[in-house]
Amino acid sequence: MKIPQRGFTAAEFEKRTARAQKIMDRHGFDALLLTAPPNVRYFTGFDSQFWESPTRPWFVVVPREGAPIAVIPEIGAPEMALTWIKDIRTWAAPNPEDDGLSLLKSTIESLPRKHGKVGAEMGREMALRMPVAEFLQLRGSLGLSLENGSPCIWEIRMVKTETEIAHIHYICQIASDAYEALPSQISIGESEREIVRKLRIDIARRGADSTPFMPAISGPGGVAQIVCGPHDRLIEKGDILFIDTGSTFDGYFCDFDRNYAVGQVSDDAKRVHEALWLATEAGIAAAVPGAKTDDVWRAMATIIEAAGAIGNNVGRLGHGLGMQLTEPPSHRLGDGTLIVENMVLTIEPGMEYAPGKMIVHEENIAVTRDGPRLLTKRAPRELPVIC
Amino acid sequence: MKIPQRGFTAAEFEKRTARAQKIMDRHGFDALLLTAPPNVRYFTGFDSQFWESPTRPWFVVVPREGAPIAVIPEIGAPEMALTWIKDIRTWAAPNPEDDGLSLLKSTIESLPRKHGKVGAEMGREMALRMPVAEFLQLRGSLGLSLENGSPCIWEIRMVKTETEIAHIHYICQIASDAYEALPSQISIGESEREIVRKLRIDIARRGADSTPFMPAISGPGGVAQIVCGPHDRLIEKGDILFIDTGSTFDGYFCDFDRNYAVGQVSDDAKRVHEALWLATEAGIAAAVPGAKTDDVWRAMATIIEAAGAIGNNVGRLGHGLGMQLTEPPSHRLGDGTLIVENMVLTIEPGMEYAPGKMIVHEENIAVTRDGPRLLTKRAPRELPVIC
Repeated sequence: MKIPQRGFTAAEFEKRTARAQKIMDRHGFDALLLTAPPNVRYFTGFDSQFWESPTRPWFVVVPREGAPIAVIPEIGAPEMALTWIKDIRTWAAPNPEDDGLSLLKSTIESLPRKHGKVGAEMGREMALRMPVAEFLQLRGSLGLSLENGSPCIWEIRMVKTETEIAHIHYICQIASDAYEALPSQISIGESEREIVRKLRIDIARRGADSTPFMPAISGPGGVAQIVCGPHDRLIEKGDILFIDTGSTFDGYFCDFDRNYAVGQVSDDAKRVHEALWLATEAGIAAAVPGAKTDDVWRAMATIIEAAGAIGNNVGRLGHGLGMQLTEPPSHRLGDGTLIVENMVLTIEPGMEYAPGKMIVHEENIAVTRDGPRLLTKRAPRELPVIC
Repeated sequence: MKIPQRGFTAAEFEKRTARAQKIMDRHGFDALLLTAPPNVRYFTGFDSQFWESPTRPWFVVVPREGAPIAVIPEIGAPEMALTWIKDIRTWAAPNPEDDGLSLLKSTIESLPRKHGKVGAEMGREMALRMPVAEFLQLRGSLGLSLENGSPCIWEIRMVKTETEIAHIHYICQIASDAYEALPSQISIGESEREIVRKLRIDIARRGADSTPFMPAISGPGGVAQIVCGPHDRLIEKGDILFIDTGSTFDGYFCDFDRNYAVGQVSDDAKRVHEALWLATEAGIAAAVPGAKTDDVWRAMATIIEAAGAIGNNVGRLGHGLGMQLTEPPSHRLGDGTLIVENMVLTIEPGMEYAPGKMIVHEENIAVTRDGPRLLTKRAPRELPVIC
């Protein structure tokens, strides 16, 4: 597969911004105040691993007209200048007395107004990347109302562009190939931790930029949980080895898992694996424009329940995917999100079939006008075996 | 070097908690409310890469007496049960109607009280990992006052235990060895991106768990910034290649850089490199118990200024280090933090000596009763050369 061009054109960012501004107007916002890395990158293209340092806040303001404005520490200015953003305002940071607040306030207050409201990352599935005390100080002194902009921001980011989907597709293919090659590289008796190290290195070699998420869990016939690990446990005959990964290419995640039979597994485990493979098929087929996330959930839940599920501590059967490992919506009864073209979704049926024995499958798809399009290479119907 | 035991004993967590409770009492807090991964892990030992998913908030409450209480989504319960935490309260998440808030509120309200105040991650160098709207809702309904607990939390985390220092030392040694081996693995004409890929893989092979931070930047005689990259630029004769890394072992970071001469560099670059090497020596020597961060800054700044610095967009000359890439304090004029035994610090002198030509050095040290102890392998006084 051809490596997608890194980054995005100014034309794409202009299109993203224009679409966002329409959605903002509908939500009654004159501007969005962004602090979180994926939101900053979505509108500016600015990429940094420096987000690991919590010392300095960074701000991007999306006005109701025109291009976004960056209000950032001096340390970030040379790199921000390489993006399509022209209006870059900086302060000497860190500065405990005023870490950008007065500059941010004057920037927001100088913008054209219609609604008198600014949307901030205050809501669900988002965290504000600045001290809350300073946010509240800004909120108390700003001449506009700072309100929950998260539903608006998610409405913007939930529908992807073609180039975003190409990025996700690429990282899905890299991880698919690495998952497929794994049984030839590991053996019974190796530790979960060593297996993860090998897979991480292989995924890096194949062209991923990073692997922020790779839990690996093993257990006889299934696992107790799917989000923590690896541990030092050695894989044994009869285990299911579960590995999930959120690896990235140019800022975009894949998020899907694979299951392996270590030697021979029980007939029960095989039966549940088969049911989940079919549930995945049903979930994929249900993810069409015009359906709701509830429908996708129902398509999978019917099969899972018939297969004898006694629980599922994950709380949903898949979700949105993009610049973050998980994004709205959720395939969950009551979520009620309308599925539209160019959403990228995970299809993630799972079930506990006996206490402490859970199996979970997962694939990634893009929703097209003609229906779902698989971005991952579909997991084999029969469990691959590790010898 | 021997690999440190992963994780920490219950005795260590009890000691951390008892010390924290003394500091909390001094700050006037009956409890701490924690949501951010490093804070949760510091008190519980709970490790997960699932923090990449912003969907579900997680809470840990440190009361004024007794062990911390985990208030977490069901998905995390099996793994939390493996830690020393006994009181684990869960809810079925995601649940947009009540994502743990009522459970958290009743948990906090049932605790013993003296001051009527709870410390939350509201202040500097911290971000709250939960929706601010829900935090404000809790704040409005809680029968105690929710206030800025960040200075208290940083006072707790800023002084490390012996085992924490052993973790940081180990990852510093791994990265030191990889940096030292790099010139034999790369050549003039390779791209920054390929160089980073090789170094990431080598660091993983040597035993690091992850490398969340590895900017690499190259430029003739120096670089314009030190926090973003790699790019596709090919390294050329006359360049300084700058690489920094925050890699981790069992939840602890190193954070230090190395500079390489690509072929031959200018005499100016060599002169500045030598000045920074001496400034690092001075910074290390100044980091003794009883000194202030301002003193460490001054020891380096004097040498840097004498060498003809025209600027430094980093804004400080080093900082704390631990479960995060950067932590308080800052070596900065006016920071005023008293340096005490068992702090772990970076010593990071840097200067721009001509427009767009910056060179930055960095080492990691632990402060002992007898003075500074180097955790990294000291950078060579002469620039290593890439041919």
